[in-house]
Amino acid sequence: MTERRLDPTTGEWTTFATARQDRTFLPPAGLCPLCPTTDPARPTEVPRDAYDIAVFENRWPALSGRPPEPDLDGTSLYSVEPACGAAEVLVFTSRHDATLADLPVAQVTKLVDVWAHRYAELGARPDVAYVFAFENKGEAIGVTLHHPHGQVYGYPDVPPRVAIEMRAAREHLARHGTCVWCDVVAAEEADGARLVLQGAAVSAYVPFAARYPYEVHLSVRRHVGSLLDLDATERRDLAEVLSTVLRAYDRLYGFSLPYVLSVHQRPTDGGDWDAISHLHLELTPLHRTATKLKYLAGSETGAGAFVADVRPEDAAGRLRQLLS
Amino acid sequence: MTERRLDPTTGEWTTFATARQDRTFLPPAGLCPLCPTTDPARPTEVPRDAYDIAVFENRWPALSGRPPEPDLDGTSLYSVEPACGAAEVLVFTSRHDATLADLPVAQVTKLVDVWAHRYAELGARPDVAYVFAFENKGEAIGVTLHHPHGQVYGYPDVPPRVAIEMRAAREHLARHGTCVWCDVVAAEEADGARLVLQGAAVSAYVPFAARYPYEVHLSVRRHVGSLLDLDATERRDLAEVLSTVLRAYDRLYGFSLPYVLSVHQRPTDGGDWDAISHLHLELTPLHRTATKLKYLAGSETGAGAFVADVRPEDAAGRLRQLLS
Repeated sequence: MTERRLDPTTGEWTTFATARQDRTFLPPAGLCPLCPTTDPARPTEVPRDAYDIAVFENRWPALSGRPPEPDLDGTSLYSVEPACGAAEVLVFTSRHDATLADLPVAQVTKLVDVWAHRYAELGARPDVAYVFAFENKGEAIGVTLHHPHGQVYGYPDVPPRVAIEMRAAREHLARHGTCVWCDVVAAEEADGARLVLQGAAVSAYVPFAARYPYEVHLSVRRHVGSLLDLDATERRDLAEVLSTVLRAYDRLYGFSLPYVLSVHQRPTDGGDWDAISHLHLELTPLHRTATKLKYLAGSETGAGAFVADVRPEDAAGRLRQLLS
Repeated sequence: MTERRLDPTTGEWTTFATARQDRTFLPPAGLCPLCPTTDPARPTEVPRDAYDIAVFENRWPALSGRPPEPDLDGTSLYSVEPACGAAEVLVFTSRHDATLADLPVAQVTKLVDVWAHRYAELGARPDVAYVFAFENKGEAIGVTLHHPHGQVYGYPDVPPRVAIEMRAAREHLARHGTCVWCDVVAAEEADGARLVLQGAAVSAYVPFAARYPYEVHLSVRRHVGSLLDLDATERRDLAEVLSTVLRAYDRLYGFSLPYVLSVHQRPTDGGDWDAISHLHLELTPLHRTATKLKYLAGSETGAGAFVADVRPEDAAGRLRQLLS
């Protein structure tokens, strides 16, 4: 059963993909489905004996261009729709044991280029309203394959967290006449207390009201809506800042730090988003100490109210000390 | 540092309470701070040699009636306020090794009465806009003390998830002239496919667009905004339905199932909520199989878009089989 259902008590869609219950779960390195195919009798997901970066449709897609018919009819109370959209896997490198932090900046720049390419191609599809590139890294985040990879989803609507950001940005624009993200980057660069790293085009900082421990946002200083608006130098700067922050993350506790990486770009549904869409990346780790995680418990899950244990200025100071 | 900061890019507050980093973490049973005080030389948090149910202020409060001054001044971009409100611990029983599912219905009814009492008392405070009772159960949820207990927060505003529910309910009311929760309970009782248990006053069902595996909502059939609107028979029915569902949860995988329990009631800020506030409880477990958790990863954390692996009708059918 693969379908989307609308919750009338929240106005939010849940995407169901029950086949994902059987997806490959932490296979041994010799059976990694993301490694190159070295034995034709045992093909992996990538039918090449070598590759640089690979993108393909997820074998257990939550969203797809040819979704099955829904299991259930909708009612006047309950809406149901096919799970239209896209779900792609993006393999960062053929090196099974690497992490994104280990890769040369040139390879991370290629990843940024692939993100831009997928944004353009999926965003052009009429059934895709929002292109979302992300990486789930580490078992603490629930990753099911260790080979360094991310994913790109094409949602048929603007998803809830992005809608919340867009509403806040529109209110800020109406009140102040400016883009809130432009104002935030300028404020963080001027203040410096939460700044982790200031690149030529991109700054990395711990957000003022960070919800996760050691959360870091990377924002382009210039008001741009997507990676397509960046020139080659800016893309390389983004890759370099990202790479530097990830290396600092790995020094924080002396192990490769799990996190979610989210790329927020302009919706692709043709709406009036230019003035309020500002390209940024969000890094959200869960470790509040080397051995303790920030769990989303009652306050976060049931009320949506985040309680944080780490002072943003302290997190930024510690990360600055760990930069190389 | 204890303070609330507003994120201008989302319009949401984060509550910081850095002293919570040092809170008691999974102490051995002999040092449980929630057990009765048996040795006066080593007092626990409950200064009695026996008790039935106990409520007291959290020793590491996120929110309090006498919050310290914020660490930082606000700016035109960034708002800061003292962390006003309440954070209470509610111990369900003096029996260290019990769980809520183990307790007699009479004890669960007392818990419902205490929730109602705390709702009345905290809700009457001018600095409390929303009273939120919840339980974090199990290490998978991040619980730091095993003794069966929950918490009651008094937020100074209506928290984000509740605001989302209220907006959806107001839109439903404007369109259909009815309370969406009343319509949902009626639809679930009529359909039956997702119904887990129908009590005299309260029904338990897996929500149509459930975000968590084996998520169950308990809604009062009658349109009531808070526990204060229930009579003694209805409160006992709520306790009985809750107790029955929790026992089925523990049979699901053969171990005591971790979950978050959230009690959603009418805001207490004096606003116009009566027509759209409908008392309900949300149970959100994380286990999608006996050994695998539903993680909130990229799609949920970065985009707010839930991808679910378990078909709600299957979850309800399985739970029905496990009722005693």
